Amino acid sequence: MAEKMVAAITSMDEDFAQWYTDIVKKAELIDYSSVKGCMILRPYGYAIWENIQSILDSKFKATGHENVYMPMFIPESLLNKEKDHVEGFAPEVAWVTHGGKEPLTERLCVRPTSETLFCEHYANIIKSYRDLPKLYNQWCSVVRWEKTTRPFLRSREFLWQEGHTMHASAEEAIAETKQMLDIYASFHENELAMPVVKGVKTPSDKFAGAEDTYCIEALMHDGKALQAATSHYFGDGFAKAFDIKYTDKTNKVSYPFQTSWGCTTRMIGGLIMTHGDDNGLVLPPAIAPIQVVIIPVAQHKEGVLEKAREIADTLSKRFRVKVDDRDQSPGWKYAEYEMKGVPLRLEIGPRDIESNQCVLVSRLDRAKTFASLDGIADTVAERLEAVRQGLYDKALANREKRTYRCATMDEIKSELAAKGDGFVKAMWCGDEACEDKVKEVCGVGSRCIPHDQEQISDTCVCCGKPAKHMVLWAIAY
Amino acid sequence: MAEKMVAAITSMDEDFAQWYTDIVKKAELIDYSSVKGCMILRPYGYAIWENIQSILDSKFKATGHENVYMPMFIPESLLNKEKDHVEGFAPEVAWVTHGGKEPLTERLCVRPTSETLFCEHYANIIKSYRDLPKLYNQWCSVVRWEKTTRPFLRSREFLWQEGHTMHASAEEAIAETKQMLDIYASFHENELAMPVVKGVKTPSDKFAGAEDTYCIEALMHDGKALQAATSHYFGDGFAKAFDIKYTDKTNKVSYPFQTSWGCTTRMIGGLIMTHGDDNGLVLPPAIAPIQVVIIPVAQHKEGVLEKAREIADTLSKRFRVKVDDRDQSPGWKYAEYEMKGVPLRLEIGPRDIESNQCVLVSRLDRAKTFASLDGIADTVAERLEAVRQGLYDKALANREKRTYRCATMDEIKSELAAKGDGFVKAMWCGDEACEDKVKEVCGVGSRCIPHDQEQISDTCVCCGKPAKHMVLWAIAY
Repeated sequence: MAEKMVAAITSMDEDFAQWYTDIVKKAELIDYSSVKGCMILRPYGYAIWENIQSILDSKFKATGHENVYMPMFIPESLLNKEKDHVEGFAPEVAWVTHGGKEPLTERLCVRPTSETLFCEHYANIIKSYRDLPKLYNQWCSVVRWEKTTRPFLRSREFLWQEGHTMHASAEEAIAETKQMLDIYASFHENELAMPVVKGVKTPSDKFAGAEDTYCIEALMHDGKALQAATSHYFGDGFAKAFDIKYTDKTNKVSYPFQTSWGCTTRMIGGLIMTHGDDNGLVLPPAIAPIQVVIIPVAQHKEGVLEKAREIADTLSKRFRVKVDDRDQSPGWKYAEYEMKGVPLRLEIGPRDIESNQCVLVSRLDRAKTFASLDGIADTVAERLEAVRQGLYDKALANREKRTYRCATMDEIKSELAAKGDGFVKAMWCGDEACEDKVKEVCGVGSRCIPHDQEQISDTCVCCGKPAKHMVLWAIAY
Repeated sequence: MAEKMVAAITSMDEDFAQWYTDIVKKAELIDYSSVKGCMILRPYGYAIWENIQSILDSKFKATGHENVYMPMFIPESLLNKEKDHVEGFAPEVAWVTHGGKEPLTERLCVRPTSETLFCEHYANIIKSYRDLPKLYNQWCSVVRWEKTTRPFLRSREFLWQEGHTMHASAEEAIAETKQMLDIYASFHENELAMPVVKGVKTPSDKFAGAEDTYCIEALMHDGKALQAATSHYFGDGFAKAFDIKYTDKTNKVSYPFQTSWGCTTRMIGGLIMTHGDDNGLVLPPAIAPIQVVIIPVAQHKEGVLEKAREIADTLSKRFRVKVDDRDQSPGWKYAEYEMKGVPLRLEIGPRDIESNQCVLVSRLDRAKTFASLDGIADTVAERLEAVRQGLYDKALANREKRTYRCATMDEIKSELAAKGDGFVKAMWCGDEACEDKVKEVCGVGSRCIPHDQEQISDTCVCCGKPAKHMVLWAIAY
């Protein structure tokens, strides 16, 4: 039975896309619904999201942000208020045209993002410098009418958080934009064990209406890039479009400066493609719904289940623990929790109990070790941290191995041809035509201008003119 | 300034509806948006909802429920699958007809409730008795295209949770329906300090598609009733309509039995109308975003702010505490936190510090008492519990005073004419025509058949035939 479950997943080297689809289904993260492009988040998938939410929400609150809830509908005239923004989003929104049997006098779109709603509200409540800053966030679902969809990575409806803040000065707003990028980056690197590159988007790739879009980019196991979160600086463009004004300390009327920032259930797709293997999902402990699964061995024998539950009681003070006492073979259970990516397995049988020990198996490398039951909680804490560190190191090694430093487009092409997809670091003059040409000729798009710049060469990889920036290029999800 | 804030609220005896509207705005619970019938939950209003969510979610999880997330859209054909259900909801749903510029091949409604989506999913994942029970819940927003709207009480979009469960036997499903009603009732009575009547709806008032709808009904300060939460038993009607079947232990193919249960942001409206007064909101401690506000008196004097923060540090280990050190007069701050319904105010000034004491003011009755700073956390815990108990007692006294036991329709009319709106307890034969007639003649509708039955008389209050049940009647929100 254990064999059968494992055999049911496509190998990632054979067909990465099918491997991904197998995992989201077999680990019971999602189910499809009859609504094309919308997915059902099953209990295990949603529990990962709840853990992500809980950690990020604490970080947002610790930095002074407050949660609100805006309507899910945006009247067409409101969406139209900021020109760049509507051009970016109107082609991909879902339109509500009827309420019951009555046609609406004005169409409403289902929010693809809520800048317009926040701006309308801010225009109502910001009057004086005393009302600034406003540091709001909301957790909700948004809708974008995508043509091609994949679970977590691109769906017509997805869950996310969107922060929207207003500040008295540009400096303060830019500092906020960067602070939120740092929070996303540290969350990815620490809690999700995913190394990320921090950078700023090139102008052609900015968010609709933003002055600057900052992002974090991660490399997936197959060498493709994933944009993991974004943080936008808007200047006072929306404030002017929405007539948001306040009186400053000198009694002068000014426009405030704005940011927005968000991350989505897409991160769960990133987790799968960064850490998963041919046995299934592998979850970093911070967001794993079950951190330690306890499998009683020979559970019908006297004292085994009792001991398993006793250990669970001890561990559950510090960890999310489950005892699986179902009437199935241990091997069957091992395969199931490997598929579900539980970071640590604790096996306990009659002989272990005699020796006051248990077996610990790390999901990272399936290495088995014996551990004394004395101080088991501390041992588990160490092992979980080892899983986290191991996942991070493995992902970082994959990224380093697949990062190519190229001085010419020929080098880009030959590196990619020889070694497969990955991050390309190459110089750029700043001209959009060169950006387009690299994509056309080499197949990789600009992901961002990384904060950590390297001097790969002096000239643009495309036109040979003096280079302004090192750009990170990749094929992206 | 304190005077001015208070003066800005309409008195509840003068105009209850306007008083309610004043509170939701002035306590900064909501703002209106340009989307008619949809409200913005501002940080203070949303924080109340977060506290409600957090408590209920723990209770749901402690009874074995798991959270999921279903799509927000329901294809028209899916909504149409259960006849009673679609008849109940189709007239009040919002229809999405276009994605971007393309008309959809099938209209999608924005979920008014998600029975149909859950059933479709359950048909996919329930195959064997081992898959039962399924105990799912989701937190989301739903849309019902109401004609007349009021913040919290009736809006086109609102936040709620909806539990949907599947069971092997009718008995187990009925027990679940009742368990969830009990959880709602105890949450209202304990955490929200709102006395409720548990009962079952008359057949004319059942949820669309349900066999039985259980509910809790609360009496508001103005004598009108509010349905605070509902729990439905569906039998196997939806299972048959959606072809949800499983193989039982004897290898027989059977239909499972279903429940659903929900409560909404409407509860916040109930809190306002149960506990509020002419100084503003009054919040029970369990869900108050700020449980204790500390106001430094003469805060420019040496040591005052330091002491206020020291007390806050001590208290914040057990309570949600805020120190207000803004440059405003204490009186202005008192009025603001009274408006916001903070259950307990702690005042600390230079003379208090000398005497190692502070002033505690209960929001319930604005009674001031001195308290020693030694053991202040225990004193605060006692005072908060006193606020909770006091709120409950006051609400219960209002309900008792306004509950009229009537043997005839004339008695109902004269009681209501003499004493104003309230709960009417009167007997009913079980005939829908009598239910309609009581409403037509006396103006009160049947709220429920309470679990706690009393024998008011032997015969139906309307037709004089033998009575089957005592019904609770009222004018409802």
